[in-house]
Amino acid sequence: MTQEDFGLVSSRTYISTVERGLKSPTLGKIEQLADVLGVHPLTLLAVAYMERLTPKEVERTIALLRSRLLAVASE
Amino acid sequence: MTQEDFGLVSSRTYISTVERGLKSPTLGKIEQLADVLGVHPLTLLAVAYMERLTPKEVERTIALLRSRLLAVASE
Repeated sequence: MTQEDFGLVSSRTYISTVERGLKSPTLGKIEQLADVLGVHPLTLLAVAYMERLTPKEVERTIALLRSRLLAVASE
Repeated sequence: MTQEDFGLVSSRTYISTVERGLKSPTLGKIEQLADVLGVHPLTLLAVAYMERLTPKEVERTIALLRSRLLAVASE
């Protein structure tokens, strides 16, 4: 996927600025990008936060996230 | 936890603006808030995206997130 595919929601200049760490994307913009990709924003964010996306790293992160969320969940 | 607890990273005015949906928070700001809460930004975002935080809803979301991430992960 290229920067052009995001043309409807983001300019090449904007994406380049975010990629170079010069600007922090808003949650609204992340949601728009996730929509273009056809995934939930949380999935996009999880991919972005994982340093390496190996099955092992996915399982480790998912297990941690699950235990943290269950700790604050209530019936 | 009250708005005052976030005083170091966010003004009451800023949080109120985000809460009322008038402004979309940047990822940088979300990371600062997560740091104050002592959780990973992804945990904070997951809580925010879940409509109801019941154990059942946690399991459902985690299972979906896991399958999506494993689908794009590679050794």
